[in-house]
Amino acid sequence: MSKIRSLVTGGAGFIGSHVVKHCLAMGHEVVVLDDLSGGFEDHIPEGAVFVQGSVYDETLVANLFEEYRFTYVYHLAAYAAEGLSHFIRRFNYNNNLVGSINLINESIKHKVKCFVFTSSIAVYGAGQLPMREDMVPMPEDPYGVSKYAVEMDLKAAHEMFGLNYVVFRPHNVYGENQNIGDKYRNVIGIFMNQIMQGQQLTIFGDGEQTRAFSYIDDVAIPIANSINLPAAYNQVFNIGADKPYTVNELANVVGECFGVTPDIKYLQARNEVMHAYSDHTKAHSVFGEGSGIGLLEGIRRMAAWAQVVGARKSKEFENIEIYEKLPQGWEKKPEGATSTTA
Amino acid sequence: MSKIRSLVTGGAGFIGSHVVKHCLAMGHEVVVLDDLSGGFEDHIPEGAVFVQGSVYDETLVANLFEEYRFTYVYHLAAYAAEGLSHFIRRFNYNNNLVGSINLINESIKHKVKCFVFTSSIAVYGAGQLPMREDMVPMPEDPYGVSKYAVEMDLKAAHEMFGLNYVVFRPHNVYGENQNIGDKYRNVIGIFMNQIMQGQQLTIFGDGEQTRAFSYIDDVAIPIANSINLPAAYNQVFNIGADKPYTVNELANVVGECFGVTPDIKYLQARNEVMHAYSDHTKAHSVFGEGSGIGLLEGIRRMAAWAQVVGARKSKEFENIEIYEKLPQGWEKKPEGATSTTA
Ligand SMILES: NC(=O)c1ccc[n+]([C@@H]2O[C@H](COP(=O)([O-])OP(=O)(O)OC[C@H]3O[C@@H](n4cnc5c(N)ncnc54)[C@H](O)[C@@H]3O)[C@@H](O)[C@H]2O)c1
Ligand SMILES: NC(=O)c1ccc[n+]([C@@H]2O[C@H](COP(=O)([O-])OP(=O)(O)OC[C@H]3O[C@@H](n4cnc5c(N)ncnc54)[C@H](O)[C@@H]3O)[C@@H](O)[C@H]2O)c1
Repeated sequence: MSKIRSLVTGGAGFIGSHVVKHCLAMGHEVVVLDDLSGGFEDHIPEGAVFVQGSVYDETLVANLFEEYRFTYVYHLAAYAAEGLSHFIRRFNYNNNLVGSINLINESIKHKVKCFVFTSSIAVYGAGQLPMREDMVPMPEDPYGVSKYAVEMDLKAAHEMFGLNYVVFRPHNVYGENQNIGDKYRNVIGIFMNQIMQGQQLTIFGDGEQTRAFSYIDDVAIPIANSINLPAAYNQVFNIGADKPYTVNELANVVGECFGVTPDIKYLQARNEVMHAYSDHTKAHSVFGEGSGIGLLEGIRRMAAWAQVVGARKSKEFENIEIYEKLPQGWEKKPEGATSTTA
Repeated sequence: MSKIRSLVTGGAGFIGSHVVKHCLAMGHEVVVLDDLSGGFEDHIPEGAVFVQGSVYDETLVANLFEEYRFTYVYHLAAYAAEGLSHFIRRFNYNNNLVGSINLINESIKHKVKCFVFTSSIAVYGAGQLPMREDMVPMPEDPYGVSKYAVEMDLKAAHEMFGLNYVVFRPHNVYGENQNIGDKYRNVIGIFMNQIMQGQQLTIFGDGEQTRAFSYIDDVAIPIANSINLPAAYNQVFNIGADKPYTVNELANVVGECFGVTPDIKYLQARNEVMHAYSDHTKAHSVFGEGSGIGLLEGIRRMAAWAQVVGARKSKEFENIEIYEKLPQGWEKKPEGATSTTA
């Protein structure tokens, strides 16, 4: 039997690097395609082939499929700053939708056995809670629209060409290898970075918005394993933790793991949903129960890792398309100015 | 009071050229942006400024908005060959979604008063009939997905930036100025072209699929007028005729208007919905009743026009991305080969 070959896009990123690790452990040959816009080469596990480039580059993508003839595609590459997507609409659709389409096109042509895609709970919009897979998606920002468009396109590709897919809608994932220098998202990483830099913790709004923060193992393991489970094929799954916490509670847990009392600075509320938690019954029925690692234990592990790696400098997004209503602290600072907000 | 300035994208196309005519009649200054991929310069009514170029060209679009400071945008430009969209996925999303996003971005920045968008009943998918605006869209092909994504993005742009929009979902429109040389869509135009070229009429499947064919006035007049009706703002409307006909019945009506008995060649069925008709209660309540022009009268008018204009040569789409399952007759013919199917 010939070896299984998997493409992992975004494999230098947070979730992707864990998926690569699990695919290697399952004996796959793994090729990582990542443009390092949000990831780090040193996160890619030993043993994977690394190709630096963008999923948006159709020629590169076509050549990769021609050369490697992948059995499976795990498509995790995305620019995932949901709140920022209002202000970078074109970039969002090019990177997150058209880039995905390049991969879907080649997966159809090369008869890939299964296309695994990380969508997001952003597709639900501010609907009823808990979010369930049989609810009708109503995304409310360009990031969520682009994810939902890819989901719908995959369904159409399945009906027309028989391409199998698995769609995951993870939420609020945290853990080792997360980019804690990204000021646009990942509140846990932002808090850790701020604590390590001796800054105040910044919170948009009053901090009473809730999220169910999910430890990486509960997300990356089912994603990697999904290609082995026929019951997962052509299905959509919520994935992640069940228990919601307020952002204020989270700040306290993170503070505790670093042995500090958090000093919080409240910023103007953003256009975001107040409460978000998902039902995971469907995922549990196919993938089994999770790791059982709760928030305090998960944050402890991540904090231990972050303290070794240290704080990375925040990357600024270069090409804002719309400045109107851009939240405080997200503007690209003029040349030579020093940072006043995180 | 300064003059109203409107941008009509796709204004050299079928519906767009009629919208331009009605906008000029309302006293607007009109700029047409069209790349002539599917339209014809001689369809643009006298009195409009014509700019040849693509909505996908972000610099051109930005410069146009800078120069003209449009009051209203009517966005009709699209590559609308729904059935072909499975095989030209990337082109479809670039042209129909990213192109639209360029216009939405600039409309936000320049505080356009209303953005009128022609979506399609393709957003509904093969759901319950009749299609109603309160049903949940489930598009089943890349064309429908791209239209629905634009609808969702407009809603997000309205919530975030206050951009007003009106979305129309027309269906099966026919009439003067329609491109009767487009072999990928517009069954009425295809039939007329085939009759005038002395060919057989080609039908995909058994011809028992039904559509409610809509005369152009019942679509273009409400579209043009929508900017004057506050009740239409930030709403979605089905628009077009109520009465469905089978494609076989249609062939007979078209034959009758040309004084011939149709000779039909049945091709392999495509992946398309069998029946499609919409409920127009919402549109009637805001825009009033339609022109009252029925199928026979509408086809007669169009046939009279088509006989003057003559049959145009069919344009081939140059950049098919996926050849697998491409319907019979849609392949680009090899150099020097003669046409065997229409
Ligand atoms: N982290 C979460 O809580 C979460 C929640 C829902 C969905 N997701 C989705 O999971 C996936 C992975 O997210 P993550 O949290 O690991 O983010 P991440 O930023 O750490 O990883 C994304 C990776 O994709 C790469 N990338 C971005 N654009 C690319 C492009 N055009 N071509 C090639 N590589 C590109 C980045 O360099 C990065 O390494 C994304 O699709 C994201 O939308 C994440
Ligand atoms: N005709 C119908 O029955 C129908 C039904 C539903 C929706 N629509 C929508 O109505 C709109 C008009 O359709 P139509 O029937 O008049 O089609 P059409 O092809 O006659 O008109 C479209 C026009 O857009 C132009 N165009 C295409 N891509 C462009 C680009 N990137 N930049 C600039 N111009 C571009 C074409 O040259 C053409 O003139 C489209 O958005 C279509 O999706 C039409």
